[in-house]
Amino acid sequence: MTYTVEIKVMPLKELLDPQGKAVMSGLSSLGLKGVEDVRIGKNITLQIEADSEENARRIAEEASKKLLANPVMEYFEIN
Amino acid sequence: MTYTVEIKVMPLKELLDPQGKAVMSGLSSLGLKGVEDVRIGKNITLQIEADSEENARRIAEEASKKLLANPVMEYFEIN
Repeated sequence: MTYTVEIKVMPLKELLDPQGKAVMSGLSSLGLKGVEDVRIGKNITLQIEADSEENARRIAEEASKKLLANPVMEYFEIN
Repeated sequence: MTYTVEIKVMPLKELLDPQGKAVMSGLSSLGLKGVEDVRIGKNITLQIEADSEENARRIAEEASKKLLANPVMEYFEIN
């Protein structure tokens, strides 16, 4: 069966996120008030052929560790 | 109060996603079997100061329309 697995890869909370800061200043230039912080990461949707949801998640976790997330700068969450 | 709003910005389903295709071939080079499709978008977390959750979502939607998502190539979802 084919399972859809979503992986969220975000910059570590301890690190600055320059892309997020740029977007924040862009939003305030556009006159949008109230946004106090912006962090930008990746959202990766995998279609995985596996015999169970558990195995699909296992494949997604391996993919995240081996290729999708850089543990020096990012953490990932699998939904 | 400060609300955390997550916005997912993904390439439109009708469009090719070259970054996703590159990751898919990377995964198969690494020997990971079972991944049939990969799509890569952005995940944006906003901290919004607003008087209600509804207003925070309204601000997030305006931000998405004005700056975060390009409607020609992307769609967004707010969580």
